[in-house]
Amino acid sequence: MLIVGERINTSRKGVNEAVEKRGAAYITVDVHKQAQAGANYIDVNAGSRIGSEMEDMNWLAEVIEATVEVPLSLDSPDPNVLLAMAKRVKKKPMINSTTAEKPRFEAMKAVMQQRECEVVALCMDERGIPSEVDQALENASFLVKNLTQLGIPIQDIHLDPMIQPVSVNSKNGPLALETIRRIHQEFPGVRTICGLSNVSYGLPHRFLVNRTFMVLCIGAGLTGAIIDPLDHKMMSNILVAETLAGRDDYCMKYLKANRAGILVD
Amino acid sequence: MLIVGERINTSRKGVNEAVEKRGAAYITVDVHKQAQAGANYIDVNAGSRIGSEMEDMNWLAEVIEATVEVPLSLDSPDPNVLLAMAKRVKKKPMINSTTAEKPRFEAMKAVMQQRECEVVALCMDERGIPSEVDQALENASFLVKNLTQLGIPIQDIHLDPMIQPVSVNSKNGPLALETIRRIHQEFPGVRTICGLSNVSYGLPHRFLVNRTFMVLCIGAGLTGAIIDPLDHKMMSNILVAETLAGRDDYCMKYLKANRAGILVD
Repeated sequence: MLIVGERINTSRKGVNEAVEKRGAAYITVDVHKQAQAGANYIDVNAGSRIGSEMEDMNWLAEVIEATVEVPLSLDSPDPNVLLAMAKRVKKKPMINSTTAEKPRFEAMKAVMQQRECEVVALCMDERGIPSEVDQALENASFLVKNLTQLGIPIQDIHLDPMIQPVSVNSKNGPLALETIRRIHQEFPGVRTICGLSNVSYGLPHRFLVNRTFMVLCIGAGLTGAIIDPLDHKMMSNILVAETLAGRDDYCMKYLKANRAGILVD
Repeated sequence: MLIVGERINTSRKGVNEAVEKRGAAYITVDVHKQAQAGANYIDVNAGSRIGSEMEDMNWLAEVIEATVEVPLSLDSPDPNVLLAMAKRVKKKPMINSTTAEKPRFEAMKAVMQQRECEVVALCMDERGIPSEVDQALENASFLVKNLTQLGIPIQDIHLDPMIQPVSVNSKNGPLALETIRRIHQEFPGVRTICGLSNVSYGLPHRFLVNRTFMVLCIGAGLTGAIIDPLDHKMMSNILVAETLAGRDDYCMKYLKANRAGILVD
């Protein structure tokens, strides 16, 4: 499971304050913990800092790269910010994200061709977020075809099924799960990724809902998650689900995690 | 989700003592709690009471039927015990269990034809517990064909995929999950059920493993579980997983459970 640590986001109060005051210590401690907890990428999002996003992202990247060896997931709505950041970061970044919207995809081409990168590609287009599996698959097909044409290897493409709240429509859970399953059937080698917090919007016990949905997603074949790696219950559920889904030969990862005292009931 | 409460089993110390001393109060309190917690059947197993199983089962059935309206799941390795019990219980019982072993199936015919009943049918035959999905499906096919020929409606058949420990073979998780998925694809209308404790045999944090496997089973289509309904974390996970799997219109069951204070993080 590819873990993208989501904590460095200026929509979080502590992170925003640290960015505001250029308080590197807060960021350093946080990303160190994320790396220790098993993050494979550190997501960096300063999208809430309108007007200063570019310089804030630059500062964050500098602090994070001075702290950990983990590569960055560059997360912005602005292709110009992503392009500038893709140029400056040391390691092969994850680009978060493109969509199947034609103008967005065109604008993102320069970013994705700037250097070797992993790409998060959202299965949505001009029509919005799909409400049917077939429409999500059409978007997936567009993305796989056009991204591989740009020279991006299929295993560097991370399709996001775009999870929507089950409180809005009871079919949103099965829609996302079936989309993940079908993506892996129809595009062998491609990877999937998702954020989870949307699924529980409007419901009580959101952490329980998010965690349980993660287990279901792993059962459907999900290969990556944008989560808080310091959420020990979430990480325990991911570890156990991977063991039970046949992704952990001889339960080695599970038993190692147990010895490290990571598992939480 | 059909919940079969597994607590009345003489392999449990408290239950064995109560049976030994004919202490009805212990049994009464326990099954009352199971019913309150949402058990659709109360499983009754006195298989450890060699020599007195028949009279112990009779006594247990009498006590339980005087306490709750919930029907019984008659659980014994001995077809004679099951036959006698099927005759005496008030409500349509669940018969736990037959297999696809020819002698066992023949011996169970009289029980299953005694009266209307729900049948737990284990997907194993003379060759043992299947190590391949196709072999489990062959057993499922034998069971569905022969049970419906006996006049048992398909929706009263509960196929058990026979979960084996992942500590023994990492493929045992996916084997059971794929078996559940394929059973529902190939035998529309049939139901599935399983006990869970085997899956975690030999691993630390067994409750966490069992619970997580239950979520994966629900994602694969499982419709019934033999569990302890007083395990609040397990019950919470089942509730959440069903909501996320699209089995809870408008999240009604989830929100009701939340109001009742049942959900545990």
